[in-house]
Amino acid sequence: MCVGLDSDVRRIPKNLSVFEFNKQIIDATCDYVCAYKPNSAFYEQLGEGGMGVLKHTVCYIKEKFPEIAVILDAKRGDIGNTNNGYVISAFDDLGVDAITVSPYLGKIALEPFLERADKGIIVLAKTSNEGSWELQNKSIFLDKEERKVFDEFGVKEVPLYLYVAWKVKSEWNRNGNCGLVVGATYPQELKKIRDLGIDLPILIPGVGTQGGDLNGTIEAGKIDGFGMIISMSREVIFASSGKDFAEAAGQRARELNEQIKFNL
Amino acid sequence: MCVGLDSDVRRIPKNLSVFEFNKQIIDATCDYVCAYKPNSAFYEQLGEGGMGVLKHTVCYIKEKFPEIAVILDAKRGDIGNTNNGYVISAFDDLGVDAITVSPYLGKIALEPFLERADKGIIVLAKTSNEGSWELQNKSIFLDKEERKVFDEFGVKEVPLYLYVAWKVKSEWNRNGNCGLVVGATYPQELKKIRDLGIDLPILIPGVGTQGGDLNGTIEAGKIDGFGMIISMSREVIFASSGKDFAEAAGQRARELNEQIKFNL
Repeated sequence: MCVGLDSDVRRIPKNLSVFEFNKQIIDATCDYVCAYKPNSAFYEQLGEGGMGVLKHTVCYIKEKFPEIAVILDAKRGDIGNTNNGYVISAFDDLGVDAITVSPYLGKIALEPFLERADKGIIVLAKTSNEGSWELQNKSIFLDKEERKVFDEFGVKEVPLYLYVAWKVKSEWNRNGNCGLVVGATYPQELKKIRDLGIDLPILIPGVGTQGGDLNGTIEAGKIDGFGMIISMSREVIFASSGKDFAEAAGQRARELNEQIKFNL
Repeated sequence: MCVGLDSDVRRIPKNLSVFEFNKQIIDATCDYVCAYKPNSAFYEQLGEGGMGVLKHTVCYIKEKFPEIAVILDAKRGDIGNTNNGYVISAFDDLGVDAITVSPYLGKIALEPFLERADKGIIVLAKTSNEGSWELQNKSIFLDKEERKVFDEFGVKEVPLYLYVAWKVKSEWNRNGNCGLVVGATYPQELKKIRDLGIDLPILIPGVGTQGGDLNGTIEAGKIDGFGMIISMSREVIFASSGKDFAEAAGQRARELNEQIKFNL
């Protein structure tokens, strides 16, 4: 289980700074998570000081809970030369352990990320949002060599998300540092990825507020009880909007952690 | 013509701040451009102060040259709720006029951008990088209604980039605020987009350092002498690495501007 630190300044208690909110959420949930996942957008919207708040948060986790991973949810992706800047920012400056990236520009463009064998590169496959079908579920034409591979698994239609997942597994993952993003809102798509023998770790947002079904997701995605990072954001961090927000977040994290374990 | 402010701190003269470098480049090239395009990655890599440098640069352009547009090249794209953060950061905090976004999550996710009728939303179609064929040139299966539209234009194969371009033109552009990114390194793809009657403004990076052919690009992309924002970054801002860097950038911008006008 992972807690998404989508700490929207418009929703946190008014007397708290975003960092103080994060600190209390982290302290209350640390026993139930393997990772925290701050989303860059909620820090960028703070303006010039936003990156400082994000860095402060990452440092706090790394110092106090070095065994817990930090995943920067940034969905980055530019041409190769430019991706170096994002790599420096995420890994060398902020010091996170993993980052989410968009596959649209292809493997060669993402090399500055993929080369970082010490870091996790988590590629968007099937995103949790409404309307992610628009491009991700369009079936694509395969060339002959590709057709053979999918025929072996009896797979006739290959939507873009499945093609991306297969590419990441078979070509992008040479350093063994890749994962995939698949939303809990689409357990059938998650199953199709696993049915193709794709055993990469999968970061799964969308349980809870977005409507994803936790039990169905675990059933579709688990490999011998492992292989998933299930991320809960608003569901946990905004469990209460009152003074007891941290206690409520800890309580909700504990319940969800138990529910996950029960279903593994 | 647009100048890309990809002001990599590792390449600018050592005695200058990134802002001072930008200021001198802007002052030297302002007569030849309709837009400046800072790429977020080069500012994020500066760490906590990076957003301040970017904002300072945007403010300088807006105050001194209010008729010149600022395009934030950020290739953003997240789920709808989260994109609000990027919208606030780019448009309300930094104050840029347009932003580049990734299409992978689909139209519904991008609504917070698309709703901003006062701002330009420039969607990646065919990116300039080596290896952009990997996903963008895969042909996709169309449903019956879609097939009819492409049949009218005699188009049999529809690669992903062309489908994206068509979607943006026909569905995403209801506020008339959309554009496309098509790299100058792929003039044939640019021609296919224009041949489909897609008359959106096209932001065209990749001329110069990346190897794109300026004249071929203009021939493929122009509509009555308009319709393109041709962006040059390293080619202009690093025209000289010496003390004369600003003068050399101005000189190169003037030459390129003349070459563009000659070919329109």
